[in-house]
Amino acid sequence: MQFYLNGYAPGDPDIVKENLPDAVDVLVIGSGPAGALLAAQLSNFPSISTRLIERRDRALQVGQADGIACRTVEMFEAFGLAQKLMREAYWVNETAFWRPSKQDRNRIERTGRIQDTEDGLSEFPHLIVNQARLQQYLLDYMRMSPTRLEADYGLEFVNLTVESDGEYPVVVTLRDVVKRTESVVRAKYVVGCDGARSLVRDSIGAVPSGDFANHAWGVVDMLATTDFPDIRLKAAIQSGDEGNILLIPREGGYMVRLYVDLGEIDPNKREAFRDITQEQVIETAQRVLRPYTLDVKSVVWFAVYQVGQRVTDRFDDVPVDQAGSRLPRVFIAGDACHTHSAKAGQGMNVSMQDAFNLGWKLVCVLEGRAGPELLRTYSAERHAIAQGLIDFDKEWSKIMASPPKDPMHPELGGLDPQELQAYFVKSGRYTAGVATHYAPTTVLTAQATHQALAKGFTIGMRFHSAPVVRLADAKPVQLGHAARADGAWRLYAFADASGKQLRELAAFLAESPNSPIRRFTPTGADIDSVIDVRAVFQQGHRELKVEELPSILLPRKGCFGLIDYEKAYCPDLKNGPDIFDLRGIDREQGAVVIVRPDQYVSYILPLDAHDELTAFFGQFLLDRH
Amino acid sequence: MQFYLNGYAPGDPDIVKENLPDAVDVLVIGSGPAGALLAAQLSNFPSISTRLIERRDRALQVGQADGIACRTVEMFEAFGLAQKLMREAYWVNETAFWRPSKQDRNRIERTGRIQDTEDGLSEFPHLIVNQARLQQYLLDYMRMSPTRLEADYGLEFVNLTVESDGEYPVVVTLRDVVKRTESVVRAKYVVGCDGARSLVRDSIGAVPSGDFANHAWGVVDMLATTDFPDIRLKAAIQSGDEGNILLIPREGGYMVRLYVDLGEIDPNKREAFRDITQEQVIETAQRVLRPYTLDVKSVVWFAVYQVGQRVTDRFDDVPVDQAGSRLPRVFIAGDACHTHSAKAGQGMNVSMQDAFNLGWKLVCVLEGRAGPELLRTYSAERHAIAQGLIDFDKEWSKIMASPPKDPMHPELGGLDPQELQAYFVKSGRYTAGVATHYAPTTVLTAQATHQALAKGFTIGMRFHSAPVVRLADAKPVQLGHAARADGAWRLYAFADASGKQLRELAAFLAESPNSPIRRFTPTGADIDSVIDVRAVFQQGHRELKVEELPSILLPRKGCFGLIDYEKAYCPDLKNGPDIFDLRGIDREQGAVVIVRPDQYVSYILPLDAHDELTAFFGQFLLDRH
Ligand SMILES: Cc1cc2nc3c(=O)[nH]c(=O)nc-3n(C[C@H](O)[C@H](O)[C@H](O)COP(=O)(O)OP(=O)(O)OC[C@H]3O[C@@H](n4cnc5c(N)ncnc54)[C@H](O)[C@@H]3O)c2cc1C
Ligand SMILES: Cc1cc2nc3c(=O)[nH]c(=O)nc-3n(C[C@H](O)[C@H](O)[C@H](O)COP(=O)(O)OP(=O)(O)OC[C@H]3O[C@@H](n4cnc5c(N)ncnc54)[C@H](O)[C@@H]3O)c2cc1C
Repeated sequence: MQFYLNGYAPGDPDIVKENLPDAVDVLVIGSGPAGALLAAQLSNFPSISTRLIERRDRALQVGQADGIACRTVEMFEAFGLAQKLMREAYWVNETAFWRPSKQDRNRIERTGRIQDTEDGLSEFPHLIVNQARLQQYLLDYMRMSPTRLEADYGLEFVNLTVESDGEYPVVVTLRDVVKRTESVVRAKYVVGCDGARSLVRDSIGAVPSGDFANHAWGVVDMLATTDFPDIRLKAAIQSGDEGNILLIPREGGYMVRLYVDLGEIDPNKREAFRDITQEQVIETAQRVLRPYTLDVKSVVWFAVYQVGQRVTDRFDDVPVDQAGSRLPRVFIAGDACHTHSAKAGQGMNVSMQDAFNLGWKLVCVLEGRAGPELLRTYSAERHAIAQGLIDFDKEWSKIMASPPKDPMHPELGGLDPQELQAYFVKSGRYTAGVATHYAPTTVLTAQATHQALAKGFTIGMRFHSAPVVRLADAKPVQLGHAARADGAWRLYAFADASGKQLRELAAFLAESPNSPIRRFTPTGADIDSVIDVRAVFQQGHRELKVEELPSILLPRKGCFGLIDYEKAYCPDLKNGPDIFDLRGIDREQGAVVIVRPDQYVSYILPLDAHDELTAFFGQFLLDRH
Repeated sequence: MQFYLNGYAPGDPDIVKENLPDAVDVLVIGSGPAGALLAAQLSNFPSISTRLIERRDRALQVGQADGIACRTVEMFEAFGLAQKLMREAYWVNETAFWRPSKQDRNRIERTGRIQDTEDGLSEFPHLIVNQARLQQYLLDYMRMSPTRLEADYGLEFVNLTVESDGEYPVVVTLRDVVKRTESVVRAKYVVGCDGARSLVRDSIGAVPSGDFANHAWGVVDMLATTDFPDIRLKAAIQSGDEGNILLIPREGGYMVRLYVDLGEIDPNKREAFRDITQEQVIETAQRVLRPYTLDVKSVVWFAVYQVGQRVTDRFDDVPVDQAGSRLPRVFIAGDACHTHSAKAGQGMNVSMQDAFNLGWKLVCVLEGRAGPELLRTYSAERHAIAQGLIDFDKEWSKIMASPPKDPMHPELGGLDPQELQAYFVKSGRYTAGVATHYAPTTVLTAQATHQALAKGFTIGMRFHSAPVVRLADAKPVQLGHAARADGAWRLYAFADASGKQLRELAAFLAESPNSPIRRFTPTGADIDSVIDVRAVFQQGHRELKVEELPSILLPRKGCFGLIDYEKAYCPDLKNGPDIFDLRGIDREQGAVVIVRPDQYVSYILPLDAHDELTAFFGQFLLDRH
């Protein structure tokens, strides 16, 4: 057995450290939440060659973020990973608020307790789990995907140039972290998911702006014993004079995270925070928690997290003045484009939403379903969202960092605990990740002309799932879970009162030469691979006959031409309100709800708007016949 | 590299085929559902050496049973496997009934449709998944357990003798299937999970009685296209003259299983069934389904399954006349003791319930928690259940196999479809596996003296879970899911109106020298490892204070002495009725419900019956101090 010809590599020499191919379709830099999610999405497509490179020598083992917004769980459901997350994670059910006792400012006391997530906001709970575990789920998913993708560890991005033409115009220099040797890889597209100090960002000349870290928090994951009663509840704790803590219970029933407020950062004394020790942070926590004791048995992870609110001017390599002429080839996602206070738990969640937004667009373009102009929408959409979040984040961080109002000295200002609690409730939708609202500024978000047909599915917002019963097998399911991370659009047709228009739509979709399905689905591909049609009927599931479904709802698929029976649904009258009522569907006229591959509502149309339907998709999908 | 010294072995020579140790605590023969479940249960205990041997050269890949009763899912929840099963399996939601059309007996038509599982029968659905997959879950679980247990394939049981004394009195001869060499292993206990032709059964002189196979079914798992509309619903189909089919949709949305009735077996022509081909069975199915077509694209598995209803006279090695003097050392479980018609889907489910009944008893005895007399209850309990099921099974099989009544010729007899449907509803509880009722004939099932205190938890039946809210983290959970496959008893204390008696009980349990917890828990073991105390309060979870819980509900555990916060619950007023109402708990007096490690209710007591509580456990648990 010979090895190490090209330099020493740690680990089992039987694991062949492949050289990267000379050219790949997508090169993803960084295996954090953004990079892992993007690679997981791309790994589903055997026609697309993807590589995920990571500077570290192996997957993250512990630490960093831990808050999983409801919206992230919805997205994970599309990867079949929601149940796994829910089983392992802590569920944030309620949040407790603690403040200095009126009798004795040196003691904290509970002032309130609220439900964490508004009823009906999502079918999933707000979860807490180690970022390392979440990334591992995605890496496991990749490995089991059709492309059996594995990350390449110990390789770092050095720089890149974009040539003006050629099939693989992005020329990337990488460096082996151990051997210090450099290599060059060409790619059709490069995505920098390389975190807050992104070199990909620098290499495309994108500029972050906003505050650099202006507030510091000591973060400790620990196993401890305490008589603080809310140790298993998320708790926002303000002490009299010792500072604030955000307490987050963690997975497994015993572990807990404390965010200990270390105060504002004086830009001239930035170094000072580097020297803060975990002992100091724990001592502060112990003072904040008085009269309760905190006996730390084991520190699992410790970091001083310096919070900045920044957003980069653009998320791709096309300078604003060339936006009309050049097409993007390099993208950045996640912390590379925006950083957030840890308080609202946005960083990791928004990073993955970036990646989910970009992933299907790359798939569509690389598979020839759509023209490359589609890729312009990524920076346009996600920049606006990031900016909105930064604004929200600043406000929220300020509130969290404010000293409590001293009732003896209201003139000194400070935050009224009631105010904090009220803001918390209001901000719940942001925190849950469901406030994202794409404006109708790209081809992907239509005007809300027909919004009235389906009031509960706001155009530009994520498709808000609701319970239904699957017709063929009478199974109670969530309609939104029809969405898989497969790059397909979903067309939900809600039946009109007579069902006539629904039938006409089904016939149009199946038979008309102008049907978007016939026009935009490649020959040989499954009929639902580009646009997946699902129908929701008004009748109970025992009143409707499978044998009377139109053919588009019983499509033949796969190598055997088997029938897919999972396209037709009825209201679930047993597990809550009828979806037509819950989501405000017009019972007389019905509605067509067009949902993007990343689960956002693009368009709402009347059932008979056949031409508009095709015209909508024709804006970005390519004719395949 | 040298290998094959002791004979050729197929596969990777790097996988060291260990010789079995000379002596093991438990030797499990056969890795079917019974053996895999038993080994999974035992694999949790590092102090117990277990080996699982299997004649096949690898784990089962396809075929055999597929019905997973609700009760089995409840049990799988204790292994943390319920979510996995639910995600992958088909859910049996409704059953359709088809019979010959009155107009034309050559055509079938739908006559009814019923909900499969009665509302509230279990928190889990009735599932269908390949037996091979279910076994794989258990094998995976074993591999991840503290003992990292793997099955030993390619080894078969030959015979055994039981010596009258010694630490490892069972002397077992095994044979390597490839090399044909024999070896001897000694064991404290041997469990024969070696199926219907069990050699372990023969070796202990146990005698099966009842019908040998008397009815044959052709079983085909297939991928097919059809216009039969209920192809995704469980369907009982009776044709006019072509026979009967039971149609079971399968996991994944496309696969389906047909049980095609091949009729009674003439004992003199048993051979004939061996020659029946899958083509013949499919042709019969096609005739039964008329006027619908069935176009089989791929046959996944085919077998002719000959149904017998048999039960063995005893399930251990102690002859009836020595029951008082000898202790059992060898057990049989699953098909080795009883076989059932495939129709009610009992075989696999009951086999695993046998193993679950035996597993914790072996753990208790081998860990020194209980005396070996406990093991006598296995045969006593499970034999009665098997006999009851056989009786039920016979009746059910007869019904399923009866020709339909011809309305033109009622004098010819046969079964009225209405009758079938009614019986189906009635038998739902049997099919769901929740009808098991242990009689008060062993120390494990007490008299129902205090049943009135908790009417919904029937003594002798499985603990019927209900929704509650966990106090410390406000999480809505199922109370029954407190049960883990850890061999521990659960003591659920339901609070009295004032809470006074509950507090007194908690104090007794924590402090009295006569407390069963103090007496029966070994020094150094976690306080909840033998008897796990949980309390359910009457207040809403926001009215009760964690800091006021008695110490027994905030136990310190593990190497750090961390506090376990998951012992106290409150009614879940949001997700359905209050558990006190749902399960008929006496609100004035409260109740103690004692639940076995295999989830069956053993005893119900008033909260102040401290001595009776200790006396109950003292019947079989050993004093450790
Ligand atoms: C130390 C630390 C502590 C944090 N603590 C918290 C917290 O307490 N709460 C919270 O909400 N959020 C926290 N965060 C933020 C949160 O982890 C991020 O918002 C989230 O991880 C962003 O995901 P991402 O994929 O965009 O970037 P990252 O997770 O940062 O992933 C970037 C990846 O790229 C790799 N990489 C970087 N440069 C290169 C290169 N040149 N070549 C190859 N690979 C490269 C990195 O090794 C890393 O794996 C923390 C972040 C850090 C770094
Ligand atoms: C061919 C077949 C088809 C079936 N079809 C259906 C069906 O359609 N529907 C249904 O409900 N049920 C069916 N069953 C029954 C169902 O599979 C059983 O009820 C269930 O598997 C019982 O589980 P068990 O663990 O007791 O035994 P088994 O699953 O039979 O497992 C016994 C194991 O022991 C091994 N073994 C046997 N002898 C030895 C030995 N001497 N040494 C070592 N290992 C040994 C076997 O290889 C096997 O792995 C079928 C069974 C068979 C065999």
